[in-house]
Amino acid sequence: MKRPTIAEIAARAGVSIGAVSYALNGRPGVSAETRKIILDIANEIGWRPSAAARSLSGSRAHSVGLIIARPADTLGVEPFFMRFIAGLERELSGRRTALLLQVVEDHRAAIDAMRLCWAERRVDGMVVTDLWTEDARIPVLEELQIPAVLVGRPRPDTDIPAVWTDDAAAVVSAVDYLVALGHRRVARVAGLSALEHTQVRIAAFRQAVLGHGLGEPQVVETDYTWEEGMRATRTLLSRRDRPTAIMFDNDVMATAALNVAQEMGVAVPDELSIVAGDDSQLCVMVRPALTALSWDIQAYGVQTARVLADTIDDRSPGSRQVSTARLVVRSSTTAPPA
Amino acid sequence: MKRPTIAEIAARAGVSIGAVSYALNGRPGVSAETRKIILDIANEIGWRPSAAARSLSGSRAHSVGLIIARPADTLGVEPFFMRFIAGLERELSGRRTALLLQVVEDHRAAIDAMRLCWAERRVDGMVVTDLWTEDARIPVLEELQIPAVLVGRPRPDTDIPAVWTDDAAAVVSAVDYLVALGHRRVARVAGLSALEHTQVRIAAFRQAVLGHGLGEPQVVETDYTWEEGMRATRTLLSRRDRPTAIMFDNDVMATAALNVAQEMGVAVPDELSIVAGDDSQLCVMVRPALTALSWDIQAYGVQTARVLADTIDDRSPGSRQVSTARLVVRSSTTAPPA
Repeated sequence: MKRPTIAEIAARAGVSIGAVSYALNGRPGVSAETRKIILDIANEIGWRPSAAARSLSGSRAHSVGLIIARPADTLGVEPFFMRFIAGLERELSGRRTALLLQVVEDHRAAIDAMRLCWAERRVDGMVVTDLWTEDARIPVLEELQIPAVLVGRPRPDTDIPAVWTDDAAAVVSAVDYLVALGHRRVARVAGLSALEHTQVRIAAFRQAVLGHGLGEPQVVETDYTWEEGMRATRTLLSRRDRPTAIMFDNDVMATAALNVAQEMGVAVPDELSIVAGDDSQLCVMVRPALTALSWDIQAYGVQTARVLADTIDDRSPGSRQVSTARLVVRSSTTAPPA
Repeated sequence: MKRPTIAEIAARAGVSIGAVSYALNGRPGVSAETRKIILDIANEIGWRPSAAARSLSGSRAHSVGLIIARPADTLGVEPFFMRFIAGLERELSGRRTALLLQVVEDHRAAIDAMRLCWAERRVDGMVVTDLWTEDARIPVLEELQIPAVLVGRPRPDTDIPAVWTDDAAAVVSAVDYLVALGHRRVARVAGLSALEHTQVRIAAFRQAVLGHGLGEPQVVETDYTWEEGMRATRTLLSRRDRPTAIMFDNDVMATAALNVAQEMGVAVPDELSIVAGDDSQLCVMVRPALTALSWDIQAYGVQTARVLADTIDDRSPGSRQVSTARLVVRSSTTAPPA
């Protein structure tokens, strides 16, 4: 293994390993002249203090952890995570901090992984995504005092800072628009019910629908997949008083709905308006192009990395709100049939 | 920071830190009874040797690096990487090895990141994707003697093992199928020309087309994006002798082609057959569903992690071939117009 070592520098400089160590650590014990020779050689051969050595002395791993607790298969088609990771990376690379990524099947495995990589000092902090309403990871993070950032709303049960977006306001704006177009039967296909933001969005949807006096809100819960998006759409379109507009919690399910509408002979947007969830490129890949709640997921990743870095540096950044998603109208929404 | 420490174990056991160290490292110097007490306490409070300490002593970081050199924006919609990473993770998590992920803009930044994380002993080895025909990373990996695995064909210029799939055979099978349907004007929309597998696929395509006596092969090179997929399709469909079938190097561009065909009034598949590149879920999200070259990208990730682990363990695994993509026929291909 040809990693530059202190011994190599010592050999080249014709001094002892101790002298090299003094010089590189800025301690007394070598002359100014020798120090300069040693630093020049170190620089020339690309020597860097090992992360391990720095971890032991300075207690930093210079890595942050992201443990995604979702079945691996769902990640391949869900554009959210790669865009979010791209945002994290954009900020972390400037700080010479690496991202330690683990994909695990569930929260239990996530907690095991979290404990292990913290006990082994592999990370300086954690990014926590997909928060549940009752989330078993939070007490573990607090017990171990792991610097962390929550990707979701600030929570009453912890002081861990959060980076969040106003999901409720975004959902309300979409409902208001559909109602303004004349829709009276608006349904929602929601994501995983255990996730906190799913509940926030459902509550906002219910309140908006009731506020417009549209009767009992129709909500179908799913697991975000293509298959469940198909199933939920079939269920809604099979009802006697079927909705004239459906909002979806992500883009994959909204795309699935386009296919079910075609299969069932329901014209989009003339007989059914569709609003997608995240405004990834999927929305312009399909026909008709999908109206969507659009938000800057990369910027969300950048802000998340910043808050975590401040937390690790003990600067108590507090929670931070990023901009609210806005409705981008394309060809999948119009007035309902007369 | 409440990470369990040796000092804590010593305090609880009422022994010296040295005694704890002897006990935990299986060295003599403590009685069997004391050793048992110490190990029980260590177990109870969840003590683990720190990665840093193990790195210094055992020279392992228990992480492998994946440095993706692509503009961050293109990752959000390209399903390949998340599926590949999911495969890597499936194998690595069983080995208690983490994945250190960095997204950088280009090969130069990738080389800097590679040198840095190796010099700092953050990783035990590297996964190298998106290989170029002339790839500046290879000599650096060799110079530093970094254990690595290439995600692509074995190369004559290095002994670094590769995990690869027979891209040429897959492309030929698709051309053969289109020709058997009666197509005489078959074009290819290729990916980034600097990538080695792009060249392998183009060469196989040219040879197959020429072998069938179909005249000069039509190839358009792109950067894999939606926008370039649109542009390339417009270019091909604007030709006087426009192709009746087009093969695309990924799914995003094949999806873009569906939209351009609709925009230009070209019926798919009746006037234009389309073959997509990777068979991600995108292929069944659109209408008509896309015929595609289908391969198990997760399994590819698993095999890649195995070969890298063997390389790190100095077991010289050699290169490994994974199964060849097979053509999955859906609704985007048929016989050409009479």
